[in-house]
Amino acid sequence: MPADPRAPFAPPASISPEAQQVLAAPSAFDVGPKPESGSATEWQRWVDAMDAALSNVFGQIDFPAEMLARSQFEIDGVTTYVLRPGHVPDDGSAPIIVEFHGGGLALGGGELAWQMAAGRAVTRNAITWVTDYRMPPRHPFPAALDDCTATYRRALEERSPSRVALLGASAGGNLAAAVVLRAKDEGTPLPAALVLLTPEVDLTESGDTFATLLGVDPFLGSLAGINELYAGTHDLDHPYLSPLFGDVSGFPPTFLQTGTRDLYLSNTVRMHRRLLDAGVPVELRVMEGAPHGGFGGRTPEDKVIADEVLAFCDLHLGI
Amino acid sequence: MPADPRAPFAPPASISPEAQQVLAAPSAFDVGPKPESGSATEWQRWVDAMDAALSNVFGQIDFPAEMLARSQFEIDGVTTYVLRPGHVPDDGSAPIIVEFHGGGLALGGGELAWQMAAGRAVTRNAITWVTDYRMPPRHPFPAALDDCTATYRRALEERSPSRVALLGASAGGNLAAAVVLRAKDEGTPLPAALVLLTPEVDLTESGDTFATLLGVDPFLGSLAGINELYAGTHDLDHPYLSPLFGDVSGFPPTFLQTGTRDLYLSNTVRMHRRLLDAGVPVELRVMEGAPHGGFGGRTPEDKVIADEVLAFCDLHLGI
Repeated sequence: MPADPRAPFAPPASISPEAQQVLAAPSAFDVGPKPESGSATEWQRWVDAMDAALSNVFGQIDFPAEMLARSQFEIDGVTTYVLRPGHVPDDGSAPIIVEFHGGGLALGGGELAWQMAAGRAVTRNAITWVTDYRMPPRHPFPAALDDCTATYRRALEERSPSRVALLGASAGGNLAAAVVLRAKDEGTPLPAALVLLTPEVDLTESGDTFATLLGVDPFLGSLAGINELYAGTHDLDHPYLSPLFGDVSGFPPTFLQTGTRDLYLSNTVRMHRRLLDAGVPVELRVMEGAPHGGFGGRTPEDKVIADEVLAFCDLHLGI
Repeated sequence: MPADPRAPFAPPASISPEAQQVLAAPSAFDVGPKPESGSATEWQRWVDAMDAALSNVFGQIDFPAEMLARSQFEIDGVTTYVLRPGHVPDDGSAPIIVEFHGGGLALGGGELAWQMAAGRAVTRNAITWVTDYRMPPRHPFPAALDDCTATYRRALEERSPSRVALLGASAGGNLAAAVVLRAKDEGTPLPAALVLLTPEVDLTESGDTFATLLGVDPFLGSLAGINELYAGTHDLDHPYLSPLFGDVSGFPPTFLQTGTRDLYLSNTVRMHRRLLDAGVPVELRVMEGAPHGGFGGRTPEDKVIADEVLAFCDLHLGI
């Protein structure tokens, strides 16, 4: 558990037995404390240990090519994985969902990028692109945003904006929203839809639930150290680093998801308010009892949200 | 503060200065602990003390008749107050919003019923009805639901269902939802819209945030004792007592509001999920930093929600 002195709360009876089990089980990703003010070498060691732990879970995932065909391309040395479900044609007619992986803006790179996305990608009526964007400690901001923006631009070369959606969970939600803000600033057409799942849209961690749910969320504590590492010499509250503080007017229809134990509950509901105030069509889901990241993907509750995200994308991508 | 051992959380910097002040100020309604298993006399004494404290705040409220004309009628000895804003015609053409007052299903009766509603009623493009429904300890369930149902039926004698909305905060949200469930069961036409503000839809208090936000919400703790008093010999989980457990299919478009510190956050998001699963058009607002009841009505955040409720009612009442 994080440093908060409060005792953990028992799983509520109001969620499925499967979800209760997830809350009751200890995290598989505890590889010791983050470096407090470590060197790049220490950070890289921590990142590698965390990624190894993630690989123990997601590295097992694969699908036969006829279920999920995987290819890849590069832009300036940065890989984007292309995941095409077997039921989606390969003739350029299918929409593209550009997904940015999570992992606190420091984890989840390499093969993990597509591995963490595959389980959802295989269900979609679209092709999923997942970019292995550059990350700190070696590549602080704006490397990741540059890479994600380049991927989005490439998608617009292959499809009309009405056939492209952006999606990201956690840190991926940060990048998806930042890509839209930057596209606005640069006059690039905006995507047809945006999906932000429990998004890390405020690197200053100023929201209410960064305090009230610290220690209640069993999977996530403060990422202040990583956020500084990511920002480098840039201000944490710049809209490209904390999209919550950007001008979201004109954003495409957006789907937001969080949970009652999610450290990013405030992030999500504040983003909801920003989008509402800007007149953007927006959907909000707050999962009962759910921590950051929902219940890990395999519970009935996760399935309900996944189905809603699917329907949302289908609707706005004209599927 | 309630019995929870956690220290209170400082108001977050992410809300308005006015809202921060509300969180920092002690409750004006602390009149000592609720009777644990008291006699009806003890309960009545507590109810009277609480109502007196409420009157100190809301008893000051009044409007000149040209701003808000007040009249009343009775059904079987139960008073309903009629609040008509000056800008709303008195010719039977204006829609009716039937509002059920809050107060834990035991408080807020008598003159308080209309006093607590007046500040919102004066802004509406509709006539507001507020029923002084019967309450425990003298009148347990189903007295309140009978009275609220009778009021709704009277509204349907005066307007088509497309010109009637139901609205309630907290315990009023319980009754508003229960009236709709009962109307469904009895074949009564349903209203055009339903507004449930931080609603007490689960008298069993089974949701996640009854644990996680106990002591974090500065204005509300468990009402288990009152709930038993209200239920009398009836089961707490009957849908007429806990509408969360009812069949909400066919419900009218519904607006839900809660906050990140609201003990009823789980109530609200679970009701949202029920309505979504039933295919009901539903709006959800989660106010950053807000406890039960929002920030008391006078902050910019409260104003935003009030405006949205107004727009929601106008839209669905054809105003």
